[in-house]
Amino acid sequence: MTIEVFTWPTPNGHKVHIALEELGLAYTVVPVNIGAGEQFKPDFLAITPNHRIPAIVDPDGPGGQRLALFESGAILVYLAEKAGALIPADPAGRYTCLQWLMFQMGGVGPMFGQYGHFHSYAPEVIPYARDRYAKEVGRLHRVLDKRLSEAAFLAGDDYSIADIATFPWIRNPERRAIDLADFPHVKRWHDAIAARPAVQRGVAVLAQNQRVGGMTDQEREVLFGKTQFQAR
Amino acid sequence: MTIEVFTWPTPNGHKVHIALEELGLAYTVVPVNIGAGEQFKPDFLAITPNHRIPAIVDPDGPGGQRLALFESGAILVYLAEKAGALIPADPAGRYTCLQWLMFQMGGVGPMFGQYGHFHSYAPEVIPYARDRYAKEVGRLHRVLDKRLSEAAFLAGDDYSIADIATFPWIRNPERRAIDLADFPHVKRWHDAIAARPAVQRGVAVLAQNQRVGGMTDQEREVLFGKTQFQAR
Repeated sequence: MTIEVFTWPTPNGHKVHIALEELGLAYTVVPVNIGAGEQFKPDFLAITPNHRIPAIVDPDGPGGQRLALFESGAILVYLAEKAGALIPADPAGRYTCLQWLMFQMGGVGPMFGQYGHFHSYAPEVIPYARDRYAKEVGRLHRVLDKRLSEAAFLAGDDYSIADIATFPWIRNPERRAIDLADFPHVKRWHDAIAARPAVQRGVAVLAQNQRVGGMTDQEREVLFGKTQFQAR
Repeated sequence: MTIEVFTWPTPNGHKVHIALEELGLAYTVVPVNIGAGEQFKPDFLAITPNHRIPAIVDPDGPGGQRLALFESGAILVYLAEKAGALIPADPAGRYTCLQWLMFQMGGVGPMFGQYGHFHSYAPEVIPYARDRYAKEVGRLHRVLDKRLSEAAFLAGDDYSIADIATFPWIRNPERRAIDLADFPHVKRWHDAIAARPAVQRGVAVLAQNQRVGGMTDQEREVLFGKTQFQAR
């Protein structure tokens, strides 16, 4: 019985692909083409009312029962605890891991996402918003660099789901006009993670569908227009 | 030995105040006036390199050792597990609780925060950004309303840290031009939580410091200007 992964090759999707590869869990990829509006199909909405990827269905969840789960951060905790790896076993280390996972979920992900919106996807150029999110992206890199000057990985000595959550937002730094040479501890950490075979397999999932270049008007409508916001 | 809470009367601060009151844990409030730049003082930065409230120091952490922790979502998990309440004991329920906690951390918090920035705090009026976040705030209320049409609370039958994380962003809906009459299940849930004595005590913490009206130029500089972004 394999875990079904409803996903697309975005940073949030890659978090789950990498974790599954690192943990050696069997999984089946169910592509959800978010640019084509597949996230609004009823069978996907039954798993997640938030119509966002990634989501998983594990037929062999807790107690042998089927578990459907969305939100990449919750999925990472679930997979790590299921496999008994990638999350510290000692309680203090575990909370430090959750702390940096939350920092990614509440800070890095949303703010880097807003950067992408205003720098690449919005239909108009808004200098104030571009500047706001460029500064925040730089600030968050500085916070990570400080942490990684003190510890090998975000949770401490060992690689964990906190690193897996953050890495997909740090690779491809040129997309956010970031030069990792300015953040030497982040660069050391990035290079170590990028070299892991499981990470390379994870970011290759659905790579043929990865976005290159700008958005079509139709994609923009589906992702940011009325389709997103109509009542259902 | 009481838990020190470094905090300010914002939604993220209130999450922790409410949890502490609900769980009956002894705590001491250490105000961090974020409008006056107190989040940049060295003793606070030693606890959190992200210079954001809330943060806690528990002298009686795991194994009886001191634990410093930031990120409201991680603090809520820690407090609930320390007290053995407000998080489901059965594994499937626990992951559902973490799922909705992550939905608050990655969606409700950051997007409602951007709404506040562009509608109340930014020095210029940017219609595109105001509209973008107003639509997202409405969409997230719809997702919550759908969930709360199926379950009494976000994690299921029982009140949990997922509700505590979300409630401070749903009260005062007029701040986001939301009428809860449009979201009857959210309103039922809101009213039940608002009536809890521990919640009323939680949102009263530092209430005398709560923001009313707009920002001064000095506050705007500290919160969004160079102060935030200089290297340290």
